[in-house]
Amino acid sequence: MDKLCKYGTHRVIEPKGVLPQPAWKIDNTPKIYKNEILIDVDTLNIDSASFTQIEEQSIKEGKEVSDIILETVSKRGKQHNPVTGSGGMLIGKVADIGEQLSGKIDLKKGDKIATLVSLSLTPLFVERIDSVRSETDQVDIEGKAILFESGIYAKLPDDIDDNLALAVLDVAGAPAQTQRLVKEGDTVIVIGAGGKSGLLCLYEAKKKVGQNGKVIAVEFSDEGIERVKEVGAYDEIIQGDATDPVELLEKVENVLDGEMADLTINCVNIPSTELSSILVTKDRGTIYFFSMATSFTQAALGAEGVGKDIDMIIGNGYAYNHSDIAINILREDQAIRNMFQRIYT
Amino acid sequence: MDKLCKYGTHRVIEPKGVLPQPAWKIDNTPKIYKNEILIDVDTLNIDSASFTQIEEQSIKEGKEVSDIILETVSKRGKQHNPVTGSGGMLIGKVADIGEQLSGKIDLKKGDKIATLVSLSLTPLFVERIDSVRSETDQVDIEGKAILFESGIYAKLPDDIDDNLALAVLDVAGAPAQTQRLVKEGDTVIVIGAGGKSGLLCLYEAKKKVGQNGKVIAVEFSDEGIERVKEVGAYDEIIQGDATDPVELLEKVENVLDGEMADLTINCVNIPSTELSSILVTKDRGTIYFFSMATSFTQAALGAEGVGKDIDMIIGNGYAYNHSDIAINILREDQAIRNMFQRIYT
Repeated sequence: MDKLCKYGTHRVIEPKGVLPQPAWKIDNTPKIYKNEILIDVDTLNIDSASFTQIEEQSIKEGKEVSDIILETVSKRGKQHNPVTGSGGMLIGKVADIGEQLSGKIDLKKGDKIATLVSLSLTPLFVERIDSVRSETDQVDIEGKAILFESGIYAKLPDDIDDNLALAVLDVAGAPAQTQRLVKEGDTVIVIGAGGKSGLLCLYEAKKKVGQNGKVIAVEFSDEGIERVKEVGAYDEIIQGDATDPVELLEKVENVLDGEMADLTINCVNIPSTELSSILVTKDRGTIYFFSMATSFTQAALGAEGVGKDIDMIIGNGYAYNHSDIAINILREDQAIRNMFQRIYT
Repeated sequence: MDKLCKYGTHRVIEPKGVLPQPAWKIDNTPKIYKNEILIDVDTLNIDSASFTQIEEQSIKEGKEVSDIILETVSKRGKQHNPVTGSGGMLIGKVADIGEQLSGKIDLKKGDKIATLVSLSLTPLFVERIDSVRSETDQVDIEGKAILFESGIYAKLPDDIDDNLALAVLDVAGAPAQTQRLVKEGDTVIVIGAGGKSGLLCLYEAKKKVGQNGKVIAVEFSDEGIERVKEVGAYDEIIQGDATDPVELLEKVENVLDGEMADLTINCVNIPSTELSSILVTKDRGTIYFFSMATSFTQAALGAEGVGKDIDMIIGNGYAYNHSDIAINILREDQAIRNMFQRIYT
């Protein structure tokens, strides 16, 4: 056996020398090494793109969804969809903790957790599939999974519905990074404010800017505007199209009397909103790109093209305590909790 | 006329309402508005991809390179290659400064400057093309160009060869951002250290870390390693492949006794080096991605996948004083100056 690695390379079977995520096959033996955590799995939350592909294949080939999943796991040692390349996350209970980790982490046997690393790198051993719930892309199983030393997870709280918690954990990085970046007195613009991560960012930003700061919600759709109003965490709302930088800049200038943002948070889920984000941000300000539709080159060349000396940050889905920060919003704010309960569960 | 705009939208002819760069046609009348600068153009430095396309078209259609350029400029009001979409930069002398800018900027009539915004957004009026130098993608012309209020430029120094200055100005953002990010005592890793921007970053990093800091040069090619050694601004050299994260991590761990970098600067010009950059950076450390080959999603998902709470910054080619900082390196360091003179002029 290779020496134990915090990233789990000691479980990689094929090809040797790569990390568990790009590996074709990993070792899913349900017995932990000293630096691992064993999980009794209750439910797999299959990534939506992956689940859709499995259902299509099931119809085309006349196979059960559960058989396709069993096949993938037996071939690869993980639920790593070979077509889409994506995974998902899982919910389960801590069954065992390796002696190198015991006492050093905030978990004990029996804790209910959600893994926040992808199923595409998580060793998974399935004994039986109990049920497939296609309306939520969830699969209940009997089985075991391994969490590596570097693997991140969230304890599921007793006071919040599991599905509600999962919906928020999925974007937990956004409010956590917002809390970290916003300073008292800042002018903060959230673009794509009416979506799930946008609303959570609005809430954290409004808390941090204080009396002298200002939070501006930018949203394209009527429904999104309604959601922003229902949550109420804003000073100004702008309905506008972030793919039209000149028009959006004019609207922001009107609302802010020619001022620009200290911090712009981009949560839009469509391409070509980089330049809008750049134009509405002041010199030496910061843009936090949480949208996976962000183009690195459009952001880099866009800022240079208009001569803006700003810091542009790639949204990192992980930050210390991000799951606690996100879950706490549901405890602190009844408006968000009610809305998310209605929409996402 | 539209109201004067610092980004030059008042010069946009078609389609209306967009910025000058995406516009098909802009107004190249060689007479400035109050918020513009008029330049007597000496030389166009055509973007390399654009120049190659023009040469191919010239052979295919039996036209002169100069005629193709004149055609583009007369159609679009700018040397914005309609096939490649790219531009380039220009060198010239300040001919006039609009009254709104006069006294507010560090330019006077007669100053020799290079524009650092793309030709793809710069109004250009060509009277005559004097010569086409295909070995350097340069075209000497008689003509005028307009620099917008937001346009960035660099004064060309008297003590440095124009072509040497241009080679360094092309990547001026990298050493400027390095100077800003590196703190005394930091451990800094430069990946792709043997290229033009990598060498400039090494130099600035080594200056800033001081006695208690450390600069590690990571480079793939033998030639790059030789260049790093010739410049000499490093504490350790690692020859390695940044597309192989597991191997590179091991090499870095060996050199740093298990420590990781406070700051990693990625200057590699090939894809798939994000994960290496993430693994060799410590928690709460920073990665500065200067490489245009960076994938936003690979960086974002990569950090989340291995649970690293790090800040990842999109390289901005512009920063205050970036041209002075870059040019000054040539004055401070004879080794870099000699090497760049040899390679880039």
